[in-house]
Amino acid sequence: MKNKRIFSTVVLFFIIAIMTISQLKAQMRNQAIVSPEVRPDMTVVFRISSREATKVSLVLPDINITRPMEKNETGVWSTIVGPLEPNIYVYNFIVDGTHTVDPMNPVMKRGIGLTTSLVEVPGKEPMYFSEQAVPHGTFHIHRYDSKTTGTTRGLYVYTPPNYDPKSKNKFPVLYLLHGVGDTENGWIEIGQANRIADNLIAAGKAKQMIIVMPRGHASFAGTSSSNPMSAGSTNAFEQDLLSDIIPYIEKNYNVSKNAKDRAIAGLSMGGRQTLVIGLAHLDKFNYILPYSAAVRNVSQDSVLQKLISDPASINKSLKVFWIGCGTEDGLFAGNKSLSEQLTGKGIRNTFFQTPGAHTWLVWRLYLNETLPLLFK
Amino acid sequence: MKNKRIFSTVVLFFIIAIMTISQLKAQMRNQAIVSPEVRPDMTVVFRISSREATKVSLVLPDINITRPMEKNETGVWSTIVGPLEPNIYVYNFIVDGTHTVDPMNPVMKRGIGLTTSLVEVPGKEPMYFSEQAVPHGTFHIHRYDSKTTGTTRGLYVYTPPNYDPKSKNKFPVLYLLHGVGDTENGWIEIGQANRIADNLIAAGKAKQMIIVMPRGHASFAGTSSSNPMSAGSTNAFEQDLLSDIIPYIEKNYNVSKNAKDRAIAGLSMGGRQTLVIGLAHLDKFNYILPYSAAVRNVSQDSVLQKLISDPASINKSLKVFWIGCGTEDGLFAGNKSLSEQLTGKGIRNTFFQTPGAHTWLVWRLYLNETLPLLFK
Repeated sequence: MKNKRIFSTVVLFFIIAIMTISQLKAQMRNQAIVSPEVRPDMTVVFRISSREATKVSLVLPDINITRPMEKNETGVWSTIVGPLEPNIYVYNFIVDGTHTVDPMNPVMKRGIGLTTSLVEVPGKEPMYFSEQAVPHGTFHIHRYDSKTTGTTRGLYVYTPPNYDPKSKNKFPVLYLLHGVGDTENGWIEIGQANRIADNLIAAGKAKQMIIVMPRGHASFAGTSSSNPMSAGSTNAFEQDLLSDIIPYIEKNYNVSKNAKDRAIAGLSMGGRQTLVIGLAHLDKFNYILPYSAAVRNVSQDSVLQKLISDPASINKSLKVFWIGCGTEDGLFAGNKSLSEQLTGKGIRNTFFQTPGAHTWLVWRLYLNETLPLLFK
Repeated sequence: MKNKRIFSTVVLFFIIAIMTISQLKAQMRNQAIVSPEVRPDMTVVFRISSREATKVSLVLPDINITRPMEKNETGVWSTIVGPLEPNIYVYNFIVDGTHTVDPMNPVMKRGIGLTTSLVEVPGKEPMYFSEQAVPHGTFHIHRYDSKTTGTTRGLYVYTPPNYDPKSKNKFPVLYLLHGVGDTENGWIEIGQANRIADNLIAAGKAKQMIIVMPRGHASFAGTSSSNPMSAGSTNAFEQDLLSDIIPYIEKNYNVSKNAKDRAIAGLSMGGRQTLVIGLAHLDKFNYILPYSAAVRNVSQDSVLQKLISDPASINKSLKVFWIGCGTEDGLFAGNKSLSEQLTGKGIRNTFFQTPGAHTWLVWRLYLNETLPLLFK
C-alpha cells in the first residue's frame, strides 16, 4: 500500500516534469474532451476547446456539411451530426477562419493539401473497411532511390497474412495509385486498403496478393513539374514505375513476374495513370482498373485515342478492364463515354456506376468491389 | 500544341470538379503559403492563414518558445525563429486559444495527447537524424492479436538495408520502447529511428539489426488501466512483450533467439519498462539501455530495489547497462542516483549525462549514441 502511494506520487511528479507549463495547460483543458464521439445511435459528437475563438465550424465535405458549432460555459465548442451511414469520413474544424484538424484525434489523412481528421462510424455488422477479427497482413514503408526522378521516394507495400518470402508460389501484385491531393500513404491512411484486403482474403473472396502503393507525383531528374497532371509528369511516373519500382519490388518480395499476375488500378489522377500506363504496357499488366479516372473529352484526348487504337491486342491481353465512376462525380460523363467508345470499338470492358461523388467513400467501395476480380 | 491546350483545360476542369467550394476556398487562400520555410541561414519562417483570428501564437516547446505571430494585410500570420541548431523540432500554433497543427505541413507526430507539427533544420553537414544518400532499411507496420490484452495492437518493425529473410545469419533485435505521450509510431515519426540506424549502418558504426517498436500502453484482457505508469500496466506490457510480441517477431522475421542478440531500450515510461522488464529477464536481454527513465526515489522504489539485489547475476549476464539522462530533465537526479546505487553494489553500468531536458532532442541523440554499442 505504502509503495503504491509512493509510486503514485512519483508518477505525478514525473508527469508534471515532462511537460512545459503551456503544454500542461492545453492538455488539462483538453483532457476531458472526447472528440469525435461516435454514439451507439450512429450520431457523432465533435468537440474542440477554444475559450477565445468567436466562431468555430465543422466541415464534413464527404456529405456536404459545413455548420457552426456551439460553445458551452467551459469554452468547449460542439455539434452533433447524424445518424450517419457506417463509413469513414474526413472532417476539419474552422476556428476563426483557420482550417484545423481535431487536436484530440490522432487519426488523420496527411496528403499534399490540407491535413484532415478522420472519423469511423462502424456498422451493426462488421463493415468491409473496418478492422475485423481476421488474420492481418502487414504494410511496409520503403524509401527507394529512383533513378528516374533522382530523388529518394516513399513506397507503401501491403503483404497478405499468408505472405511467405520463401514459398515456391510467387504472389501476384496489384499496383494501386492515388489521386492528385494524396501521396503514397493515401490508400492506407484513408483508403484502408490493408483492412479491405484482409477482410476479403479472410472471406475467401480475394486471392492472397501483394499491393504496391507508389508515390504518383513525379518529374524527371533535374526537372520539376508544377502540374502533377501534365503529360510530362505522367511520363516520369511511368518510367519510375517500370524502371525503378517494379524491379525494386521484384528484388525485395517473392512476386510473380508474369503480366497475368500483375494488375494496375488507381483513382482520379491515378485512374488516368492506370489507363495511360496500363494500355501502353499490355505485356506487363493484364488487369486495368481506373476508378473515377481523370478523363473528360475522350474523343479529343489524343493520348487515350492512340492507346485504344488496337482493340484486338487489348482484348487478347486483358483479363479485366473495369471502369468505375460515381454518378455525382464531375468526371462521370467522361468515364461513361470512355466505356462506350471502348465498347463501340469492340473492346471488352465493364462500366460500373454507383451513387457518389469524387470522394474516398466511392474509392474504398471500388477497391472492395474489384479485388475479388483479380488473378482468378 | 492544340492537344496540350485541350489537356490543360481538361486538367483545370478536373481540379475544380474534385473540390467542394469550401475546400477550394481554403486551398486557394493557403496555396501561396509555405510553412515552415527553413532558410539557408537556418532561420525558420512559420506561417498560417487566418483572416478572422484575433491572436495567433507559435509554440516551440523543445526550445521553450511561445510567441505571438504577426498578421499581414492578406490575413497571413507569421513569425521568424532562429537561426536554430540543426535538429527536428515540434511546434504548434495557438489560434484564438486553440492548439492546432500547421495546416500546410504534412509532417507530424501523432501520439496520445496533442498532435504536433515537425520541422527539420538540416545542418551544413549531413546530420545523424537526416535522410542521407545511403542504403535505406524499411519499416513495417503490423497489427497483431495480443492474447495478453485481448485486443489487436500496432507494432512497428525496422529491418536494415541488408535484411534477408532467408540468410543463415540470424539478425539481432533491439526492442525499443516509447514514452507516456507516444504510441508505437513515436520512434519513427519523431524519433527517426530508421534514419539513425540507416546512417550508422552505412558508416559501419552499427550492426545490421532489427528494431522492434511495440505499443507500450497495455492492460490485461478484460481490464482497463487509467494510469499507463502503474505497476499493473507495466506488468501487462511485460507479458505482452514476452508472450505475444517476441514470439510474433521470431515467427515473422529471421532473428536470433539468443539473449546475447537481444537488447531493450526505451525512453521515460519506456525507460522504466526497460529497467523493470530487462532486469527481470536477464536470460532474455543482455543489453539494457534506459533513456531518461521514469525513476525518482530509487532507494524507496521497492520494485527496482528487488531487481538489483543480485549484482553477480546482473554482471554475469549484461554486456551493456547504459543509463542516459539530460541534466535539465526533472528525472536527472533519479537516474544519477540509480547509476550511483548500481555502482555502489558493484553492478557495472555507464551513466551518460548530456545537456538537455525531457525531449526528443535528447532521445534521438541517445539512440545514435547507443546503437553502436549493441551486438559487438
